[in-house]
Amino acid sequence: MPIAENIKNALSSSSMIRKMFEEGMKLKKLHGADKVFDFSLGNPDVDPPQAFHDIFVKLATEDEKGSHGYMPNAGFPHVREAIAKKVCREQNVEVDFSHIIMAAGAAGGLNAVFKTICNPGDEVIVSRPYFMEYRPYTANHGAKLVEVDSLDNFDLDINAIASGLNEKTAAVIVNSPNNPTGKIYSEEVLANLASLLKEHGKKTGRPVYLVSDEPYREIAYTESVPPILSSYPDSIVVSSYSKSLSLPGERIGFIAVSPLIHDKDDLVNGLIYTTRILGFVNAPALMQRIAGSLTEAKVDVSVYARRRDAFMKALDNAGIEYAMPQGAFYLFCKVPQAKNNEQKDDKEFVEHLKKYLILGVPGSGFGKPGWLRFAYCVDEKIISASGSAFKEAMENW
Amino acid sequence: MPIAENIKNALSSSSMIRKMFEEGMKLKKLHGADKVFDFSLGNPDVDPPQAFHDIFVKLATEDEKGSHGYMPNAGFPHVREAIAKKVCREQNVEVDFSHIIMAAGAAGGLNAVFKTICNPGDEVIVSRPYFMEYRPYTANHGAKLVEVDSLDNFDLDINAIASGLNEKTAAVIVNSPNNPTGKIYSEEVLANLASLLKEHGKKTGRPVYLVSDEPYREIAYTESVPPILSSYPDSIVVSSYSKSLSLPGERIGFIAVSPLIHDKDDLVNGLIYTTRILGFVNAPALMQRIAGSLTEAKVDVSVYARRRDAFMKALDNAGIEYAMPQGAFYLFCKVPQAKNNEQKDDKEFVEHLKKYLILGVPGSGFGKPGWLRFAYCVDEKIISASGSAFKEAMENW
Repeated sequence: MPIAENIKNALSSSSMIRKMFEEGMKLKKLHGADKVFDFSLGNPDVDPPQAFHDIFVKLATEDEKGSHGYMPNAGFPHVREAIAKKVCREQNVEVDFSHIIMAAGAAGGLNAVFKTICNPGDEVIVSRPYFMEYRPYTANHGAKLVEVDSLDNFDLDINAIASGLNEKTAAVIVNSPNNPTGKIYSEEVLANLASLLKEHGKKTGRPVYLVSDEPYREIAYTESVPPILSSYPDSIVVSSYSKSLSLPGERIGFIAVSPLIHDKDDLVNGLIYTTRILGFVNAPALMQRIAGSLTEAKVDVSVYARRRDAFMKALDNAGIEYAMPQGAFYLFCKVPQAKNNEQKDDKEFVEHLKKYLILGVPGSGFGKPGWLRFAYCVDEKIISASGSAFKEAMENW
Repeated sequence: MPIAENIKNALSSSSMIRKMFEEGMKLKKLHGADKVFDFSLGNPDVDPPQAFHDIFVKLATEDEKGSHGYMPNAGFPHVREAIAKKVCREQNVEVDFSHIIMAAGAAGGLNAVFKTICNPGDEVIVSRPYFMEYRPYTANHGAKLVEVDSLDNFDLDINAIASGLNEKTAAVIVNSPNNPTGKIYSEEVLANLASLLKEHGKKTGRPVYLVSDEPYREIAYTESVPPILSSYPDSIVVSSYSKSLSLPGERIGFIAVSPLIHDKDDLVNGLIYTTRILGFVNAPALMQRIAGSLTEAKVDVSVYARRRDAFMKALDNAGIEYAMPQGAFYLFCKVPQAKNNEQKDDKEFVEHLKKYLILGVPGSGFGKPGWLRFAYCVDEKIISASGSAFKEAMENW
C-alpha cells in the first residue's frame, strides 16, 4: 500500500541513533550483553530516585477516583502550580500555573511549540551540532530548520546566528546542556544572544522566539545551568523528566512560557490547542501527578560524573580527543587521524569501532561530520572495560 | 507575540465540547456540582475495573528496573504480542506483534496514521455527524477532510461515500460505535463499503485505506461490534483504553494493521516513524504494560446500559426525540420544534437548556446542525434528576 512520499523518503534515511540501538541489540544477542560496549542511545539507566518509587506506590495504592480521567488539556492545575514554583527557582522569574503547559516529554512539547509559532515557510535557527530530531519537529509544521555553525569550543557563535536571521525567522532553538557536546551556555553568551535577537526584532518588526530545549538542565557537573526565561523576554522553555527522573519511556515534561513575553494569551492558548489537536490531548495523567510531587527530586548525578571521568580516562589512554562535557551524558569525540594518514570519516570510524564491539553514533547524525557521540548512560564497569577495546581499535586505525 | 495564522484562526472557533466543559465547571461552582446536569464531555466516570487497580499496584510495588526507560518506538514487544491476541479475537484475523503499534490514545494513533498515509492535498472521507477532532487530525498533515451525509438512521450512506471518492482520496474513516450517534455499523454495511472501496481502487489504481477509529468497541449494549480488519484488506484499526478501561487521561491505545494489507512494511515502518517524530516517541511505558496485562478486562458496561435507559426515559417523558444508541455513551437528540413554531437551531436549544442547568453540545459541533449530543458518563442519579429539568425546559421552548 502506498504511503506519503515524504515519509517514504524519510524511512530510507532514518535515525542513525535508532539504527545503532537496534544494531546493538543484535550484537548483544550474538556476543552477550556484557561484551558489547553500547554507547549509542541516551537511554538513562540510573534508577529514578527513591522519592519517585515512594509516590508511585502511594498513588497506585490510593488510586484516587477519577485520577485517570480527562483534565484541562494544559494539565492538572495543581501540578502546573507546583512546577511553576520549580521554574521560578530555576529560571529566576516569577511564573504561575498559567505559564506552564504539561507536555508528553520534551519531544511532545517541542512539536506543540513549533506548530503554535511557525507559519508554513518560517525558519528556525539551530547551531550545529544538534539533536537531529529538531529537523522533523520543525518540518512537521511546515517550518524549515536553518543550521549555523558553532564556535570551535561548541559555544554559540552569535555572528553565525546573526547571519541566519531574516524576516522569516520564527525562532532560535538552543539546547543546554547540549546533546551531543555537553556544553552549557554561559549567562554572558545568552545575554549576547538576547541582544542580537532584540535588535533583530526591533529592526524587522518581527520578534523572534528563543526556544530552549532543556531536558538535561539537572544533569550538570560543576556549574549550574543559567536561566533562559529571565535572559530574553520572548522565550519558551521545554523540559522533560526523561533524564532528571530517568523516565524517558513515560513521556512527561512541560512547556514554560516567559512571564516577560508580550501578550502571552494567544501563545498559551495556542500551545494548549496544539497539544490537543496533535493527539497528545494532555500529558499522561499519572506521570503529571508524580512530576508535580517531585519538584525537588532528581537522579543521583554523581553516578554520571563518575562515568564521565571513567570514559574520559579510557579515551585519554586511547588517544582520542573530545569536548569536555559540562553536563548531559554524552562525550563528543573527534575522529582520530588514521595511522596511514588516509582521510576517513566519522561513519568509517564508527564502523571500525564496531569490530571491537564499541557502538557510537556518527557526528553526521548531528550535523557535524568528523565527530562521533558516545552516550555514557551505561554501567561504569562497562565503560572501564571498554578502555582496552578503544586502545586496540586505535592501534589498528 | 505573534503565533501561526492557522492556529490563531482555530483558537477563535475552538472546540464546542471543551467550551461546554469549561462552562460546566463555572456553573458547578455557582450552583453546586450536584445541581448541574452536565452531559457535555465524554469523560468516563465509571471506575477502571478491579484488575486495573491490581496490576497498577503490582507494577508500582515491583517497580522493575529499567521499566520506565525507552523501548522500541512501536512499544514493548511483549505488550504488542498480547494485544495482537486480543485483536485476533475481536477482528477475526491472524495478526502478530508486527501488526501492532502502541499509541498515545486513539488521538495519537490517528495523527500517526494520517501523517503516514496522506500526501499534502489528499482527502479523507467521513460521514456526518462525526467527532470533530478528525478535522485538525487530518489538516495537521496537509490532508483535507471531506464530509458526506449518512442515512436518516445514521447508517453509512454508501452512495454518498461513493460520490466523495476520487483519485485524491487516501482514506475513509469510520467510527463504530459512533460518537455522537451510538450507531454500530453492521457486517452487511461494512461489506458494502468494502466492495465500493475495492472497486474504486481497481478503477483508479489507487487503493484507499479504511481507517476505523474504535475507542468504543467494548461499550456495546445488545450486539457485538463487527470486525473491520477482516472486512477489507487495506484497513487500519485505531483503538484506545480511554473508554474500555476508563483511562482517558493516561493516553494509551494502539494501531492495528490488517494482515491482509498488501506490502505492509512501509506502512508499519511509517507508523513507527511518525509516532517518533510527532513527539509521542512511544506510548507511555507504564500504561503499555498495564494494557498488555489487561486484554480481558473492561469497565462494567451494564452501568452505562442502565444510564442509557434512564436517560431515554427522561427524554421520552420530555418529548425529545433521539437516535437509539447501540453503543458508546452518547444520546444524539433532535432539536424539538419550538411551541410558537419559530425556527430555532441547535445552539439556541443548547442555550435554552443551560437555563435549566442542562449542558449538552450542539450538533453543529459534529457537522450536524439541528441535533445535539448528551454524554451519559455521569451518575445515574443525576440523569434521573434531570428528568424534571428537561420537562420544564420543554414546557418553555
